Amino acid sequence: MSILYLFDILGTIAFATSGALSAMNKRLDIFGVLILAFVTAVGGGTLRDVMIGYTPVAWMRNFTTISIILVTYIVTLFANAHIHHLKKLLFYFDSFGLGAFTITGIAQGLAFGLHPVLCIALGTMTGAFGGVIRDIMVNEIPVVFRKEIYATACIAGGSLFFLLRFLNIETHLTEVISAVTVVVVRVVSFRFKLYLPKIYDYKEID
Amino acid sequence: MSILYLFDILGTIAFATSGALSAMNKRLDIFGVLILAFVTAVGGGTLRDVMIGYTPVAWMRNFTTISIILVTYIVTLFANAHIHHLKKLLFYFDSFGLGAFTITGIAQGLAFGLHPVLCIALGTMTGAFGGVIRDIMVNEIPVVFRKEIYATACIAGGSLFFLLRFLNIETHLTEVISAVTVVVVRVVSFRFKLYLPKIYDYKEID
Amino acid sequence: MSILYLFDILGTIAFATSGALSAMNKRLDIFGVLILAFVTAVGGGTLRDVMIGYTPVAWMRNFTTISIILVTYIVTLFANAHIHHLKKLLFYFDSFGLGAFTITGIAQGLAFGLHPVLCIALGTMTGAFGGVIRDIMVNEIPVVFRKEIYATACIAGGSLFFLLRFLNIETHLTEVISAVTVVVVRVVSFRFKLYLPKIYDYKEID
Repeated sequence: MSILYLFDILGTIAFATSGALSAMNKRLDIFGVLILAFVTAVGGGTLRDVMIGYTPVAWMRNFTTISIILVTYIVTLFANAHIHHLKKLLFYFDSFGLGAFTITGIAQGLAFGLHPVLCIALGTMTGAFGGVIRDIMVNEIPVVFRKEIYATACIAGGSLFFLLRFLNIETHLTEVISAVTVVVVRVVSFRFKLYLPKIYDYKEID
Repeated sequence: MSILYLFDILGTIAFATSGALSAMNKRLDIFGVLILAFVTAVGGGTLRDVMIGYTPVAWMRNFTTISIILVTYIVTLFANAHIHHLKKLLFYFDSFGLGAFTITGIAQGLAFGLHPVLCIALGTMTGAFGGVIRDIMVNEIPVVFRKEIYATACIAGGSLFFLLRFLNIETHLTEVISAVTVVVVRVVSFRFKLYLPKIYDYKEID
Repeated sequence: MSILYLFDILGTIAFATSGALSAMNKRLDIFGVLILAFVTAVGGGTLRDVMIGYTPVAWMRNFTTISIILVTYIVTLFANAHIHHLKKLLFYFDSFGLGAFTITGIAQGLAFGLHPVLCIALGTMTGAFGGVIRDIMVNEIPVVFRKEIYATACIAGGSLFFLLRFLNIETHLTEVISAVTVVVVRVVSFRFKLYLPKIYDYKEID
């Protein structure tokens, strides 16, 4: 069993928690909290599978994901008052998940014979779009479009993946190194408060 | 012809009306009203079909749905000033529709050989997500995440469906009883103003 | 090579620019700008392909589209301060694109053996829904539901398409005439400030 599998589980926990917390922040009821936990954890992969035509989509093929989300949901409901103590831990889980999800997306693209650029796009989508759907559902402009190095980490790890593959590095090693790269880029950029630039001198033209 | 078919028609009328009214509330033009009527009526089923890979999606396979939506749309455009008199009637239509849509979603899941839990999820999606997409399109946080027993009714009816199925009750009877259960749970909870709890003591952690 | 191909390219440029500008208006970072450029240009076609089950979706089958979007994105990033001088030009590009996208959607529907009404719906979706997804992503009510003759142009051109087809006009000619009709309806309605009506006497019923 690969270390990526562990990353994936940690990521699912972190993503589901982030969706649940987002829902609670907006005073949604417990069904809303469940759905937000769910779409945040599986939204990226679902979008990927739907676009490449790999159906039924991932969360329907794999009960582990659903089980983890349900347990995370229940724990979050009951322990929500304490979760802010776990903020740092969840950030790391989230970063591991981002790494795993990116590699899963790339592997899926390869399995469908897609071009590396498309594979990296699918990896980024798998990692980043759960959060995009979460934010849209609670009526916010997606945070990954505004203030976090998130997709950049996916793109960096994804590019390294194809470099290593081109160099004929063994597949599993390639996956692990690339996933860890995603994690490192995300964590380092967060620590040093690195953001993507915005276009400030832009004149609104309607 | 099953009574579920009648429920389905009533539901399509109610859902399309709710989308059209939501669009008018937001001062959309008549194209916006059409699209909102449409997505509210077919959004849940479309999402379900796309995720399980049953394409072209339902509204493309069935002209009855499109015709009902178009007629509802036109009536709503011209009779909108009087629709508030029908509020109560539409609530019942909506509840019948919720029952029918839930059972349709479950049946679709079974046809694809999915696990009961996934089937109930698909049923809930079919019933509740048209309204979710409607609300997102007019820039609101979905009402089913906030203040109505809606999905809960789907889950209750769906669970009963599989209990009856497990007990070897005849299929059509199982479907009707389960659909009626969805309707009853929805109507009763509305009458007695039952809501799902929210998590009030939650400390925002951002 | 058809003139429609040229229209399609101009449209992709205009749609990507409109997404990028919309993202800059909302102060998104450069990743957000990229995604908005992307979804605006390919969102309508993606939705169409997903709903009819033609996967992997269009932008994964065709590198030209991705390349045009990337170049447009980069130019927009660097030249954003000057783009307001091009407002009028971009409006024409957008209109040509609307024509081409509508015909592409109709052709796709025909290839899947769908009814003319569904084909026109797919054409309209291809032309208009990139903008819908763009607006939802930046937390706005979609502009095509509120204040522009946009979908109406698609529907007019689409209807003419099937009239000409019924009259046995040669396919390519039918496509070009219909696409040009979309362009003309859009441009003329914009010039004369024609809008779709809204329902003003509507009483909010909640």
